[in-house]
Amino acid sequence: MKLTILISCPDQAGIISSVTQFLFLKNGNIVYLDQHVDKEAGVFFMRLESEFTNGISLTSFRTDFEHNIANEYQMEWSIYEDGIKPKMAIFVSKYNHCLYDLLSRYNSGELEVEIPFILSNHDDLSYVAAQFEIPYFYVPFTKDIRSEAEQEQLKLLAEHQIDFIVLARYMQIVSPTIINVYPHKIINIHHSFLPAFAGAKPYHAAFKRGVKIIGATSHYVTEELDAGPIIEQDVATVSHSHSIKDFIAKGRDLEKIVLSRAVHLHVARKTIVYNNKTVIFS
Amino acid sequence: MKLTILISCPDQAGIISSVTQFLFLKNGNIVYLDQHVDKEAGVFFMRLESEFTNGISLTSFRTDFEHNIANEYQMEWSIYEDGIKPKMAIFVSKYNHCLYDLLSRYNSGELEVEIPFILSNHDDLSYVAAQFEIPYFYVPFTKDIRSEAEQEQLKLLAEHQIDFIVLARYMQIVSPTIINVYPHKIINIHHSFLPAFAGAKPYHAAFKRGVKIIGATSHYVTEELDAGPIIEQDVATVSHSHSIKDFIAKGRDLEKIVLSRAVHLHVARKTIVYNNKTVIFS
Amino acid sequence: MKLTILISCPDQAGIISSVTQFLFLKNGNIVYLDQHVDKEAGVFFMRLESEFTNGISLTSFRTDFEHNIANEYQMEWSIYEDGIKPKMAIFVSKYNHCLYDLLSRYNSGELEVEIPFILSNHDDLSYVAAQFEIPYFYVPFTKDIRSEAEQEQLKLLAEHQIDFIVLARYMQIVSPTIINVYPHKIINIHHSFLPAFAGAKPYHAAFKRGVKIIGATSHYVTEELDAGPIIEQDVATVSHSHSIKDFIAKGRDLEKIVLSRAVHLHVARKTIVYNNKTVIFS
Amino acid sequence: MKLTILISCPDQAGIISSVTQFLFLKNGNIVYLDQHVDKEAGVFFMRLESEFTNGISLTSFRTDFEHNIANEYQMEWSIYEDGIKPKMAIFVSKYNHCLYDLLSRYNSGELEVEIPFILSNHDDLSYVAAQFEIPYFYVPFTKDIRSEAEQEQLKLLAEHQIDFIVLARYMQIVSPTIINVYPHKIINIHHSFLPAFAGAKPYHAAFKRGVKIIGATSHYVTEELDAGPIIEQDVATVSHSHSIKDFIAKGRDLEKIVLSRAVHLHVARKTIVYNNKTVIFS
Repeated sequence: MKLTILISCPDQAGIISSVTQFLFLKNGNIVYLDQHVDKEAGVFFMRLESEFTNGISLTSFRTDFEHNIANEYQMEWSIYEDGIKPKMAIFVSKYNHCLYDLLSRYNSGELEVEIPFILSNHDDLSYVAAQFEIPYFYVPFTKDIRSEAEQEQLKLLAEHQIDFIVLARYMQIVSPTIINVYPHKIINIHHSFLPAFAGAKPYHAAFKRGVKIIGATSHYVTEELDAGPIIEQDVATVSHSHSIKDFIAKGRDLEKIVLSRAVHLHVARKTIVYNNKTVIFS
Repeated sequence: MKLTILISCPDQAGIISSVTQFLFLKNGNIVYLDQHVDKEAGVFFMRLESEFTNGISLTSFRTDFEHNIANEYQMEWSIYEDGIKPKMAIFVSKYNHCLYDLLSRYNSGELEVEIPFILSNHDDLSYVAAQFEIPYFYVPFTKDIRSEAEQEQLKLLAEHQIDFIVLARYMQIVSPTIINVYPHKIINIHHSFLPAFAGAKPYHAAFKRGVKIIGATSHYVTEELDAGPIIEQDVATVSHSHSIKDFIAKGRDLEKIVLSRAVHLHVARKTIVYNNKTVIFS
Repeated sequence: MKLTILISCPDQAGIISSVTQFLFLKNGNIVYLDQHVDKEAGVFFMRLESEFTNGISLTSFRTDFEHNIANEYQMEWSIYEDGIKPKMAIFVSKYNHCLYDLLSRYNSGELEVEIPFILSNHDDLSYVAAQFEIPYFYVPFTKDIRSEAEQEQLKLLAEHQIDFIVLARYMQIVSPTIINVYPHKIINIHHSFLPAFAGAKPYHAAFKRGVKIIGATSHYVTEELDAGPIIEQDVATVSHSHSIKDFIAKGRDLEKIVLSRAVHLHVARKTIVYNNKTVIFS
Repeated sequence: MKLTILISCPDQAGIISSVTQFLFLKNGNIVYLDQHVDKEAGVFFMRLESEFTNGISLTSFRTDFEHNIANEYQMEWSIYEDGIKPKMAIFVSKYNHCLYDLLSRYNSGELEVEIPFILSNHDDLSYVAAQFEIPYFYVPFTKDIRSEAEQEQLKLLAEHQIDFIVLARYMQIVSPTIINVYPHKIINIHHSFLPAFAGAKPYHAAFKRGVKIIGATSHYVTEELDAGPIIEQDVATVSHSHSIKDFIAKGRDLEKIVLSRAVHLHVARKTIVYNNKTVIFS
């Protein structure tokens, strides 16, 4: 069995020693350890992967960890067992490139998740869902019916025991009604190099400003639009010879890559959020 | 002899044909031609390099070009003779990395300019100027003496017949008094990926926002701070493990590279400004 | 109507002038012109796009161009009418990532081609073809039956009037029997930064050498393995912490991007091959 | 006081726990810990930084570490005290760009080394050494006088107690006579993306091959030419429009950046060599 352990706590001497000693006594073999200290904030972060050749009880392991280690150091912590696939819902609108990219990776076995359903405020992409034989729920969304639509969304998320949501170019603002149920568990792709060009039509804004590089940003969704903790960013060069249409075409490739990397990091439990920023373990 | 010709004018059919025909009749051999049309704005841009084996009179060439070509198409145009080095003034404050980089390139013959002087609002970097045997003028600058300082600057610029100014991390705002004398002839390096983090302390702002990529931007100085036409940008990846000090260290390398590229482009007459953007010929 | 014209010929004065004059007299409006001179080789290259508001006869245009321009300058040239989609065959083996990527782009209308069929030496990926409703031909290929297999391939290519072939991780060497029918019309993706690590298992070789950057290369197929004219390359950083499996996963994204860019360039008629190199117009 | 500890040893359970426990008992506060396991080779690597508020004796610390930890796990290890600047010699020939770059960083305090001297097989760059007031030794080097020249080099290196050597475009092959005295302590910059284009004139070879990306590689010097453990690499895009001269100009910037990064990593004790590869701690 293999466990992945994520820890954050107030920084002090002895944490690494205590945790590694605990694992050693449990007959664990540490195959990965990375830590980070934010000195200004005084916070310690650690991610470990430990293999156990003998069978161990996950429940008693958790209890022992809490009593012997976590309480002493006031840790926020989580322990994940390897090989359990999280359930990921995908929200889309009309653009298909990120959806195709995620489903191709899923179908190849590259992306280790279950995808119980795809949800959209439009019917346009149901054909893609059909190609990959995944349920597609069409939930119309306008200001007038926001509340009903959100209740419908929450019902679907609950029924399918969704662990996290990916907004694969979902062109609606997700409200606190949903965010509060999935704190730091909704991943968005924004088609600009944030914080530049937040909000609508970033490629048009980038074109108008005459930038020489465009970008894409994947972040956890928080109440403030396009202002959540950044998980991953990437860029591509452009020039005066590129039209807005060219920006959009180049941007599609960026969006696909950046979103898929962020999803991979989330699924591999390599992200910790604090102070509206992320620690990303490599 | 070799001439470089820059043209912009309202777009219409026949411009390329007319210009290339004109050069052919002057016994010119076109060794470089690049053009661009901004369809939305309806503006045509072209850059040509033409070699002439026979001696030609530059004065009569200019006159003929104006009468036979430029007037007909309502061109803005400029013609430069190869091998004449522009005079470049460097303004600095306390950071030496961009200054060292420019002077090293100058000393190697890589940067084909003359540098009549370095000007600073501090005395700190006079030792670098001394290393490279270039005059260093210390012109203090505070709000109270702004007007006198600017007159002193203008006097030095005029006396030395400066063609363009490079702000190599000059930590003062350049006012319209200077800008109007050097329109699109003052090159600044800003230590962020504009338009993100304009203004003071961009590395601190980037760190606080938790970005995964930092950047540097070189642009022509206009009245609005950090909002002039962008010439060149580049980026570098960062992570949670990097401190603000690391951002600054990584940024220094970006700043040097981006500024030197922008200066090269300007010196090679590869930039045209319009609509607060640049056309950069490759 | 819009035409794209590709030209290469011995360099001499007057070519641009003659060609643009010719187009002007045909009432063409040049919307794109880029040229390049390889001074060492003494070869001139040009790509033009010209719009014609009046109807013109493509046949007589070609004839006139040949007689009035091409013959005089000993040009190799081709003229393409806009909006005619070339027919592209895709060859695959067992990896699906490049295939999924190309078909997603095709399905979105991003890739302006027809795809009459997918061909493979294995039956593994027929399900992908089925998802996108494209014919899939399984043509087994071993040394013993090479000749029969190649005849079968040529028959399929001819029947479907294929214009060019994309090897989307096709793990067989394509022999001169096919190459000679499709000179500079077979696009391969090699999973290394050529010329480093040509041949089999480049990720393993890169891992063993301890490189800090891996790459992918798209090139036209020639008789010498992995030595054809390079169309496009890109790279990604790696570190000691990445396993060969990580190299392969990172490489998949590179391969998809680099191959699709090369296909885009080919389809847009932006490539000219000479001296086993490419001119790539931007 | 702050210590940096580098460890490599056969992989087994309990190493991290033992080392961190040891440091905890010495009242050390671990401010950095990164580890890596090469599973195939069965080797464990770790780098730690630990602060000690109480004064400790470095000599007894080393002895205790050896007896209590290192011997048990058969470690190769080294312990460095913070704030002691290593002595770096720079070898150059005729190109000044890497030399200027290193000296500028040194003069700014960015590069925490001492530079007792610059050595060259030509007299060309003595003026740069003079600008920065560093001794410059001109040691001519030809096949006929190789042995004498190497003895002269070794004498200078010994007299100045040099810790490591940087070949900043030193255009001579360094022989085992020198390498054996400085194993994995001679850093070279090669102007290609190794293993592509090893040996002489890599830009010419890259140009001939028609690559779309060029690179630079910094590595530790071993007996086989350009085949030592790679420390750092970076790349830049090129196109058909770039001449060999352009490749060289673009390459200069790559060389400067890549070499300076490698020197930084070495000085910060962030490199471990094994199996002709490097572990580079971030």
